[in-house]
Amino acid sequence: MANLVLPIISAMPANSSMQLSIVKIKDDESNDSLDCLAIEEPLEIRLEYGPDDDRQIKNVSVTMRTPGNDPELAVGFFFTEGIIKRQEDILSAGHCFVACTGNKENVIQVSLQAGVVPNLNNTERNFYTTSSCGVCGKGSIDAIRTVSSYNNNDIDNQVNADVLYLLPAVLQKHQEVFADTGGLHASALFDSSGELVMLREDVGRHNALDKLIGAALNQGLLPLNQHILLLSGRASFELVQKAAMAGISIIAAVGAPSSLAVQLAEEFNITLIGFLRGKRFNIYSQPKRILIPKYETAY
Amino acid sequence: MANLVLPIISAMPANSSMQLSIVKIKDDESNDSLDCLAIEEPLEIRLEYGPDDDRQIKNVSVTMRTPGNDPELAVGFFFTEGIIKRQEDILSAGHCFVACTGNKENVIQVSLQAGVVPNLNNTERNFYTTSSCGVCGKGSIDAIRTVSSYNNNDIDNQVNADVLYLLPAVLQKHQEVFADTGGLHASALFDSSGELVMLREDVGRHNALDKLIGAALNQGLLPLNQHILLLSGRASFELVQKAAMAGISIIAAVGAPSSLAVQLAEEFNITLIGFLRGKRFNIYSQPKRILIPKYETAY
Repeated sequence: MANLVLPIISAMPANSSMQLSIVKIKDDESNDSLDCLAIEEPLEIRLEYGPDDDRQIKNVSVTMRTPGNDPELAVGFFFTEGIIKRQEDILSAGHCFVACTGNKENVIQVSLQAGVVPNLNNTERNFYTTSSCGVCGKGSIDAIRTVSSYNNNDIDNQVNADVLYLLPAVLQKHQEVFADTGGLHASALFDSSGELVMLREDVGRHNALDKLIGAALNQGLLPLNQHILLLSGRASFELVQKAAMAGISIIAAVGAPSSLAVQLAEEFNITLIGFLRGKRFNIYSQPKRILIPKYETAY
Repeated sequence: MANLVLPIISAMPANSSMQLSIVKIKDDESNDSLDCLAIEEPLEIRLEYGPDDDRQIKNVSVTMRTPGNDPELAVGFFFTEGIIKRQEDILSAGHCFVACTGNKENVIQVSLQAGVVPNLNNTERNFYTTSSCGVCGKGSIDAIRTVSSYNNNDIDNQVNADVLYLLPAVLQKHQEVFADTGGLHASALFDSSGELVMLREDVGRHNALDKLIGAALNQGLLPLNQHILLLSGRASFELVQKAAMAGISIIAAVGAPSSLAVQLAEEFNITLIGFLRGKRFNIYSQPKRILIPKYETAY
């Protein structure tokens, strides 16, 4: 059958990325610049099913995703999780409006043919979600703010660009299991002079950060507002959220941040750095904490 | 306080990685070799709380993690999710034995001081888990097998190493949003001659694959046993699980696979390839489907 179907290459819509004003640092030169970010937004995935006279709607999962191909995402999710068994079970799949957000793009509903019984047994095992509201970035951020004890509003914690340049090499040198397996994410805590304080690794990036923050909590180190958190990969909403809970004031990621990660960092007065590689990096929020040696002054 | 504490660098235990016999392909030469994999295993995270005469135990989450620093992981998780507020709330944190698995390393319990009330409101939002049992890899695999309609036992779907070498460049060329943002995972479906059929991107790697499989399901393409699935990053248990549900017979990842990803691929007769870069790759399971041109025969 496959060769009867025309190739369908990438079809990401315009709202899958966004432009943002950032500060680019390269070889101690700083320049205002535009950067393109992958959009990260919550999607609530709903299932409608039952006989014609007794339709039910269940909110099965909320996932942090990049907008685009949402109906396929929902259908694929229900199929790969074993909740539906065949394409013929599906009546329709589309976005639906939810009053609390006004953003209908963040809720998707798959309706099953009357009489099709979905296998929802395993949904008791609970799918991952990251917000109490679950359907808007603003709701997610509000939910975090209510539980975080820290705000970095008055924290200066200034760090030299020179110090930042060196961190990835220190991380790499100490990431022993990664060196063997190539398969582990790392979270590392440095003091503001670039001294490594703590390093934790895991196949899951959120686990590596939870291990690090758990260890810091055990030692009475919180809030971590005089430190730098280094992430071996990309900076997602979830990682910035966890960092905010620990009072971290500077996050530096080797990879790219998402749109919602930057938004959350700004809300919590966290300096968020991405693409830290060689003698260059991008500052996505709160550049005031980064000192450029050439100018011997904060940006 | 920070400078009173001695640095605690990485402390990953011996059981965080494992050795495995694999086939290494480099420049059309194939060699049996040993490879080191990051261990991925489920961890059930429990919370014990309540007054002395009425202690309760709640299973709050199951996460796929690399063994090591489990008590820190559990404490960090409860703290960053706002379930506990301070270190002083914690009485103890340690592994506990569960009859169904015999593996006490996969369940961790944090006990709170009597009288401390955890904030479990947000746990209604459900944390991510991947297995019905949740506490042993074997249980996870059994749970998948019962719902997957496909088994690749009799599927040959042979592919030339030459074809595999070229896939990452095709992916990169078509990954438009990644090129702009540097922040997106991709899943791509190729036919066995290396022709790109479909590509989907997302900030979440599981979402990119769900989008791809949802699109394939909508088009009646399943089972995808005459194709190659290319993953832009690492191959985790979760991704192999989703691929197995769609009947995929060959998975090629640009990054490393985890231990449980390899175990699951083997169980489902899936050929799992990792570190596909330039003219080299590793075969972790079912090498029979890969043809090395030099020998003009299957490995």
